[in-house]
Amino acid sequence: MIRDLWLVGIGTGSPAHISLEGQAALRDAATILIPRKGPAKDDLAELRHRILDAAGATARVLHFDMPTRDDSLPYQDRVIAWHDEIARRWQSALAEGASDGPVALLVWGDPGLYDSTLRIAQRLDPKPAIRVVPGITALQALTAAHAIPFNTVNGAVTVTTGRRLRDHGLPSESDTAIVMLDGECSFQQIEPDGLNIWWGAYLGMPEQILLSGPLQEIGPRIIETRAEARARHGWLMDVYMLRRGPAL
Amino acid sequence: MIRDLWLVGIGTGSPAHISLEGQAALRDAATILIPRKGPAKDDLAELRHRILDAAGATARVLHFDMPTRDDSLPYQDRVIAWHDEIARRWQSALAEGASDGPVALLVWGDPGLYDSTLRIAQRLDPKPAIRVVPGITALQALTAAHAIPFNTVNGAVTVTTGRRLRDHGLPSESDTAIVMLDGECSFQQIEPDGLNIWWGAYLGMPEQILLSGPLQEIGPRIIETRAEARARHGWLMDVYMLRRGPAL
Repeated sequence: MIRDLWLVGIGTGSPAHISLEGQAALRDAATILIPRKGPAKDDLAELRHRILDAAGATARVLHFDMPTRDDSLPYQDRVIAWHDEIARRWQSALAEGASDGPVALLVWGDPGLYDSTLRIAQRLDPKPAIRVVPGITALQALTAAHAIPFNTVNGAVTVTTGRRLRDHGLPSESDTAIVMLDGECSFQQIEPDGLNIWWGAYLGMPEQILLSGPLQEIGPRIIETRAEARARHGWLMDVYMLRRGPAL
Repeated sequence: MIRDLWLVGIGTGSPAHISLEGQAALRDAATILIPRKGPAKDDLAELRHRILDAAGATARVLHFDMPTRDDSLPYQDRVIAWHDEIARRWQSALAEGASDGPVALLVWGDPGLYDSTLRIAQRLDPKPAIRVVPGITALQALTAAHAIPFNTVNGAVTVTTGRRLRDHGLPSESDTAIVMLDGECSFQQIEPDGLNIWWGAYLGMPEQILLSGPLQEIGPRIIETRAEARARHGWLMDVYMLRRGPAL
């Protein structure tokens, strides 16, 4: 039985993104639960170890295997079934070996932003007390790396997904859109005229790549650069911002 | 002449929000530039000192007086004139006393998000190299404190301002809106039916106050709570999230 579950945001790729609060939580946790293999495998596993070492964590580390998603199900059902299965695997890993005291999970970015950990945690039975420690998100790492503001003066920003960009086009009510979870370069499917793009991959890591400029001109370069980088590293994490305005 | 200007996000009210990267930047800066009085005066000045002490900062600290805004000007012109004047004050403070080396500014939240520091920095002449260190934003502190996700599954989120909510209503393309810079409880001016609100003030501080529930029911309590808290502390910083869905 888990009484206290701490979801600790660890930022997007730099071991220096973690906050003092995050470090203290990793140090105070009794058990730390870690997926055996994420999509980015060794690079991210090593980063996680560096973060735990720097925090001085002495918790018992338990691993669980991430299930695969059932592609035969429709999108929402597939997500629900996947979260159910992850929650079961957390519970069986913890039943076998948790130490007495708070259980911590390391979450890339911030546990609130396009991350399933909070939703999976809601499935635990009995429900633990959940504490969320915020972390630096990919969208902050992107705007910081480009040294640009997230919003225009009194402007709105819509944070959205590649899937939504494909299905619904660019939001019309905000002059800025930040697109996450886009493995398909969905910016190709919108009218590029009057749009600038700021793109970043491996944000916060030594491998960080940045491109920016008019979408019409930079879009094709992003597609090439992504393909090359993915071939070289074996994985890729990226995010981009689109903003209406005169060409950069 | 400033060669390197570092904008360091320090989070929203907890000295433990700062990242390891932010601490290192404050430690490595030669000069730190600080406004003599912000709107929240002593509480925030003390917090800033605690952050600098914890970082082991040894930089020369220079102060400048924040100008007041000229309310006779239209909104956009007022903002531009105000930013121009702040840039002049930075430059004269630094001309008088900067040490040789990087100049750092501490920015509440994240330097990219509804903050003017990047825009003011663009006005410096000659232009320095600008480095942005991301920080925990009020919107992350809000979702973490309530332990709720920022977005629904594959949903979009619009980050907007009180002024825009009054002028344009609730964004229709996102099921979630986060409203910043709202001194006027602008949620009163939208149809509350079918909306939940998650509100927080003094996020990250010991004084933190949280309220959540159906907007219809919780809206009036937020208005009362804000008035009481502002009278007690002399200042108030708050943010809230609105989401369509069944009543909490």
